Amino acid sequence: MKHLPLGPLCYEFSRHNEPRLRIESGETVLVEAEDAFSGQIRTNDDRRDKSLKPYGNPQTGPIWVGDAAPGDALAVKIESIEPSIGQCATRTSDPKQLAQWLGTDCPHGTHVCPIHDGLIYWSDDLTIPYRPMLGCIGTAPDTGVPTTGPAGPHGGNMDIIETAPGNTVFLPVYVEGAYLYLGDAHAAMGHGELSASGLEMASKTTITVELLKGKTIPAPRIEAPNEIMTIATGCPMERSIAQAYAWLSLWMEADYGWGRWRAYDILTHVGQISVGYYDIGTVAAKIDKEYLAKPS
Amino acid sequence: MKHLPLGPLCYEFSRHNEPRLRIESGETVLVEAEDAFSGQIRTNDDRRDKSLKPYGNPQTGPIWVGDAAPGDALAVKIESIEPSIGQCATRTSDPKQLAQWLGTDCPHGTHVCPIHDGLIYWSDDLTIPYRPMLGCIGTAPDTGVPTTGPAGPHGGNMDIIETAPGNTVFLPVYVEGAYLYLGDAHAAMGHGELSASGLEMASKTTITVELLKGKTIPAPRIEAPNEIMTIATGCPMERSIAQAYAWLSLWMEADYGWGRWRAYDILTHVGQISVGYYDIGTVAAKIDKEYLAKPS
Amino acid sequence: MKHLPLGPLCYEFSRHNEPRLRIESGETVLVEAEDAFSGQIRTNDDRRDKSLKPYGNPQTGPIWVGDAAPGDALAVKIESIEPSIGQCATRTSDPKQLAQWLGTDCPHGTHVCPIHDGLIYWSDDLTIPYRPMLGCIGTAPDTGVPTTGPAGPHGGNMDIIETAPGNTVFLPVYVEGAYLYLGDAHAAMGHGELSASGLEMASKTTITVELLKGKTIPAPRIEAPNEIMTIATGCPMERSIAQAYAWLSLWMEADYGWGRWRAYDILTHVGQISVGYYDIGTVAAKIDKEYLAKPS
Amino acid sequence: MKHLPLGPLCYEFSRHNEPRLRIESGETVLVEAEDAFSGQIRTNDDRRDKSLKPYGNPQTGPIWVGDAAPGDALAVKIESIEPSIGQCATRTSDPKQLAQWLGTDCPHGTHVCPIHDGLIYWSDDLTIPYRPMLGCIGTAPDTGVPTTGPAGPHGGNMDIIETAPGNTVFLPVYVEGAYLYLGDAHAAMGHGELSASGLEMASKTTITVELLKGKTIPAPRIEAPNEIMTIATGCPMERSIAQAYAWLSLWMEADYGWGRWRAYDILTHVGQISVGYYDIGTVAAKIDKEYLAKPS
Repeated sequence: MKHLPLGPLCYEFSRHNEPRLRIESGETVLVEAEDAFSGQIRTNDDRRDKSLKPYGNPQTGPIWVGDAAPGDALAVKIESIEPSIGQCATRTSDPKQLAQWLGTDCPHGTHVCPIHDGLIYWSDDLTIPYRPMLGCIGTAPDTGVPTTGPAGPHGGNMDIIETAPGNTVFLPVYVEGAYLYLGDAHAAMGHGELSASGLEMASKTTITVELLKGKTIPAPRIEAPNEIMTIATGCPMERSIAQAYAWLSLWMEADYGWGRWRAYDILTHVGQISVGYYDIGTVAAKIDKEYLAKPS
Repeated sequence: MKHLPLGPLCYEFSRHNEPRLRIESGETVLVEAEDAFSGQIRTNDDRRDKSLKPYGNPQTGPIWVGDAAPGDALAVKIESIEPSIGQCATRTSDPKQLAQWLGTDCPHGTHVCPIHDGLIYWSDDLTIPYRPMLGCIGTAPDTGVPTTGPAGPHGGNMDIIETAPGNTVFLPVYVEGAYLYLGDAHAAMGHGELSASGLEMASKTTITVELLKGKTIPAPRIEAPNEIMTIATGCPMERSIAQAYAWLSLWMEADYGWGRWRAYDILTHVGQISVGYYDIGTVAAKIDKEYLAKPS
Repeated sequence: MKHLPLGPLCYEFSRHNEPRLRIESGETVLVEAEDAFSGQIRTNDDRRDKSLKPYGNPQTGPIWVGDAAPGDALAVKIESIEPSIGQCATRTSDPKQLAQWLGTDCPHGTHVCPIHDGLIYWSDDLTIPYRPMLGCIGTAPDTGVPTTGPAGPHGGNMDIIETAPGNTVFLPVYVEGAYLYLGDAHAAMGHGELSASGLEMASKTTITVELLKGKTIPAPRIEAPNEIMTIATGCPMERSIAQAYAWLSLWMEADYGWGRWRAYDILTHVGQISVGYYDIGTVAAKIDKEYLAKPS
Repeated sequence: MKHLPLGPLCYEFSRHNEPRLRIESGETVLVEAEDAFSGQIRTNDDRRDKSLKPYGNPQTGPIWVGDAAPGDALAVKIESIEPSIGQCATRTSDPKQLAQWLGTDCPHGTHVCPIHDGLIYWSDDLTIPYRPMLGCIGTAPDTGVPTTGPAGPHGGNMDIIETAPGNTVFLPVYVEGAYLYLGDAHAAMGHGELSASGLEMASKTTITVELLKGKTIPAPRIEAPNEIMTIATGCPMERSIAQAYAWLSLWMEADYGWGRWRAYDILTHVGQISVGYYDIGTVAAKIDKEYLAKPS
């Protein structure tokens, strides 16, 4: 197994970025990533230094995948996500779109949460089950520059709960070598990532990367043991829901023997939506595999 | 237990509408409702006659709740929802917002689905678990006229999965007597109600109605055995998500001993979103009760 | 000319509302309306008393139009809009969607602005040209209850600048008698009505009402001397823009000899958008009449 | 005056992009750009060859501006925009968001329109005044890669009518040298750019570029002889309108002596909105200069 240790923190990779690791299809890699606070919050008293670059959301990568070319896809199996230092951190901040109801006197409320025995200690009294996921995973968009700006067809900053151990993320390839990167792990996350600060965690993620030669997909997909899903992003969210369900219907048509309109019908009755970071309108549209097997 | 049988089908109640039933707080009522196709689809060959009024979404009611006045709320416990005739029906139609991806050659695809032994027979091969819910339940908005137009603070056409047996729906009262009504039952429904035609079912719903005197709430709420939720509606959906979470934070502050910013923080990590009819942006923002008990 | 003087202030008309005036097609009426503050702000020191009903947006009407029936339309020519008392008033309030940029320390800033010689005296130094319009004009929606809730196909609370003297507003009829009403005059208004408080003015509006028997239209339209426009409302605004332009294309096809796709093409190059109250997504899509005459 | 002739067509500049021209603050440049069809449509019978890269929206640049660094701004005065070959071209295509009203049987309708004597000959009968503008003008976002993807704080693909001769566009600088680029000229454009295909024109644009050292702005601005405006982009459009007006209020506070809440008030009454490409929610919020001079 290859190992990609922490390197220089990158928010946006420079335009002369060189791959930090080169792998072939089928390889497994352990990727270390700093948390979304760039490691600046290790105790409750720490405050962020925004003069440092990047003060937020550093990624690890890019990883060059041998033979990957525009029009291909990657299948990235997430084997595991472990905390690097046994803790995570979060903070509240300006409530953005909630200000008209809650006001703007939000305390910053930075606090560090220990993680052990499968639990996150959010406060003395309250624990949250450890359900890790990656806030960001993506390939380079066709600019060739890995980005943690708003998510897109290349993946990126999606903040989808299902980007989790045991699941496989499918990503389009837009540039030679794919330029895979990841980071922004959360120890757990609710739908919407309301305050925009999850339980941010320095992480060790193990992935296995397969190149799907000639497999062209319009946007990220995830396959879990029991369900498949398509991911769309963009405001307004009702449009990204329409788009994600449309793509799921077309996927069911292309790969599972369903007619698109039969798929459209059954999704009306059994489809599910998982909401990512709400402010940029990321959603996953899902269907249980038990239904997929019966195209009628 | 009182019984409100099927009466004349009403889409929008006339402006001289008289209550069809009068109850007092605490009473249990069995309410019969026609399906959202106004009972016009009983076999696969039936087609809707749009010249009839209403050809769609008839409701049963209004029910006058004694002593209810503006500023109060109703707590409507849904005891059970049963199919009236052992079947439901659905159809595909114009894909509205999906047309740019799927095209507009959608067949109408009307089909009737038998319901028995806890299963909905969607096709010869595929069954869906029977998980009934009410597409519509509401009080009259302050116009005094029950409506199945877009959902609002009065409830109405919400299409939220959690409007289900075992749960209690809280509704604001805007007019004297509350003017409660319900209908549009679905035998099951996916998030978003993609095609706008659920598994439409003539239904017998048993509810117990409590008047909460002087309890003013800004919008519908639902309490399930394991979770509480607030409902907001309106496009864009990212705004209704913000609003639903804001209301949930304020509810946790008012009734559960949480500070609003602590609530805002924990909802970021454990909140959940359930998407109702996507085209009008209805959502429920939820939190598990296990977290509620520990305001820290 | 008939005269409909100020009567009891109505925000939402009661559900047993009786027409206050009955007219026949072709009649001209002078309609007096209170301002949107219900006349509570006559000096800079006045404050609103929200315990009064309605404290906001009273309308004058409904007006019964003889022979009007569902499926018809009204053509309401706005002959003139005059200030009733030579002044208007405005105030700033919570910035709603702007709070995340501006904060929430907005002063209420009530101030009264004299109107004379075609100018509005907003401050000692700054005058604004007097360009009056009606914030609200509508027929009853199919509930039969005139409403100042969010605008809809029946018109209502549209806040479109072009609802102005010299122009004709076309409104669908949904109930017998049409139930026309108007109010919420502004002495001038910017696109979007940013703070939601225009230059609110008690007004005397003269209208001439024609019944267009059997003319079914999907939503309000306005004809000005030099342009025609369709009005759509609803969030997100990019959807209402799409809808308004689609309706305008179909109108050009139905009444002006254009093919819908040629209309779609020319609107791309010469169409104009006027934004009403931005928070509910009201827009008018327009085309100059000089282009209409040349369907090619 | 420097001259930047047509070079290799670039949709997205490669990540090893080298500036094609280097200028100093104050210089005037004549920039030639191909039309948004990459010059593939010169007659009505031409069809696009999508196998070529780029088949759409090539830009000319990047231009390195000496001494420009992150935190600065450029003031780009548009001196003139001339047609390179005396014609423009347009086409209709899939109606995207209008499909549910118009259907999807849209003909491609490619047609070339001669330009002479200040008129665009859209058909034999119908002419449109020549009012040229640039669909795209921007600096590199902080990835360092000029882009014609959705517009952003760096400008880019804004499709704002006011990007026109006589006006000055202010753009933030995110990378050393600024990396200015432009293209996508339209001979005229309606609000919204409904079909997404304007009157696409190969163009010769003359600009004068000033570096505003240390002037940090959050997003593009335009100054016209009679008005100033801020530009925001993103869906839903009601959010970008809120953002554009908020930025305009803060600009009035910073540079024109207005308090932000007085600015917020006056913009309610005299502000104007210009809608760019509607599908990505680009808008300009504007105020006439005559009001600016009187902060009261």
